[in-house]
Parts: sequence; structure tokens; C-alpha cells
Amino acid sequence: MMSETTFPVRPIGYVRSPLRDLAEAPKQGPEGGVEAWVEVLPEYAPALEGLRPGTQLIVLTWLHAARRDLLQVHPRDDRSLPLAGVFRTRSADRPNPIGLHPVTLHEIDRLWLRLSPMEVIDGTPVLDLKPVI
Amino acid sequence: MMSETTFPVRPIGYVRSPLRDLAEAPKQGPEGGVEAWVEVLPEYAPALEGLRPGTQLIVLTWLHAARRDLLQVHPRDDRSLPLAGVFRTRSADRPNPIGLHPVTLHEIDRLWLRLSPMEVIDGTPVLDLKPVI
Repeated sequence: MMSETTFPVRPIGYVRSPLRDLAEAPKQGPEGGVEAWVEVLPEYAPALEGLRPGTQLIVLTWLHAARRDLLQVHPRDDRSLPLAGVFRTRSADRPNPIGLHPVTLHEIDRLWLRLSPMEVIDGTPVLDLKPVI
Repeated sequence: MMSETTFPVRPIGYVRSPLRDLAEAPKQGPEGGVEAWVEVLPEYAPALEGLRPGTQLIVLTWLHAARRDLLQVHPRDDRSLPLAGVFRTRSADRPNPIGLHPVTLHEIDRLWLRLSPMEVIDGTPVLDLKPVI
């Protein structure tokens, strides 16, 4: 029985990427993540104030293609490895499929942010941008 | 006008901490975060399989006391600093108030995880646990 408490998260933008499907997406950004853009929704423009190219950011995404009902997985999809709890893996499949992506911000063009490395597919919702401290 | 797309996140557990209110909570874990427990909800027990003390984890929380309507803040609540977009700050006040907490996992007692440093208050919902890679 799942807890019935929920909180609604809202996309603040979307990833625009040459990666079009999961089959071509690397498992983690440093393993072949590409340059991508985040298109921020116009209503969040004030939240970008003061952001500068060269900044190290953590992008939080909503991994919309993930399965939320899986609590155990074979790490790295390697079926020779024993099942592990998803909280000891970085599997996208988990109760709240929030992706964390450490990136460098290269360019800001109004509502568009160019950054790398990003391993998620085109259209992935973005939930937050946080500077690395 | 806010986007109407939302995704529901569900607590997978709750922080149990001696910090009882925001006035005594430090701004960031390394600035005085304390030892705390995460109590994982029983239905998520299988997701803990294989997790071991000594692991570096990133705890994701839902900062339920935060304001979601603020897009600009004075960094570190210092009103002598100019307003900055929340995406260039680590303010808890932001459209999706998800906290990221790098911690060391010290002990696992069934559904209870002892870890530090944690700066959030008692009762804060936990959304995810991810190993550092």
C-alpha cells in the first residue's frame, strides 16, 4: 500500500537535445552525455536573473519514461548482477524518478541555456536549476 | 500564467531530526548540519536492499515550508545583496522546492537510516536516496 500524500512538481522548462530515444541515451552524463539546451518557460524568466555562462549547475529533471513501480533492479541493466534496491543504484526507475545532472552552463540566450553533458532525451521536463556550492 | 502540467511526487520516508524549526536550521548542511535519521516507509523496504553503512548518499527532500511563488530572493537572506533569480541561488524558496543533501550513511536499522550532515527540520518528507557516483 502506497502512501497517499503527494506533492505536485511543475516543469520549469524542457530539455532540447539531439538524443531522441532511450536506446541512444547513455546511462550517465559523463559516459557520453551531449550538449543540449534547456528551454525555460517564459513565466520563470525572472528566476534566471544573474545566472552567468561558465557556472557549474545541477539540473534536476523528471525522468518521464521511467517506471515508478520498480523497487529493485539489476544494476546497469546487467542481468548477471543480483537484484539491488533502487536506493543503492542510480537507475532512472525509482519511486520518484528525479534525475540529477551536474553540467557546465555554456551560453544563455534569453530563455535558452546551452549546457553539457546531458544524457536525457529530448523533451524531458526540467524541474530545477541549482548552482554547485 | 503557470504551466498546468504537474507530476506527483510521493514521500518515501521522513526526516527525524533534533532540529525542530527553521530558525535553528543552518542554511546548508556543511554549515552546521546535524546527525539525523531518515525513517523509510515500510512499502519501500525492498528499495534499501544492498545499501551499506559508509556509503555517500544524496538525499532528496521536499522542502515543505518553502515558498514556491518566489522567483527572486536576496541571496542568503542578506538584504544588502541585490535580488537574484532563484536558479542562481540555493534558496529553499523556488518553484519546485527539492532539497539536495550530500551525506554519509552511518547506520541502517531496518527502516531507519542514520546520516549526517542534515540541515532540514524534523518531519521533512524524503523523496529519494541516491548513491554518489
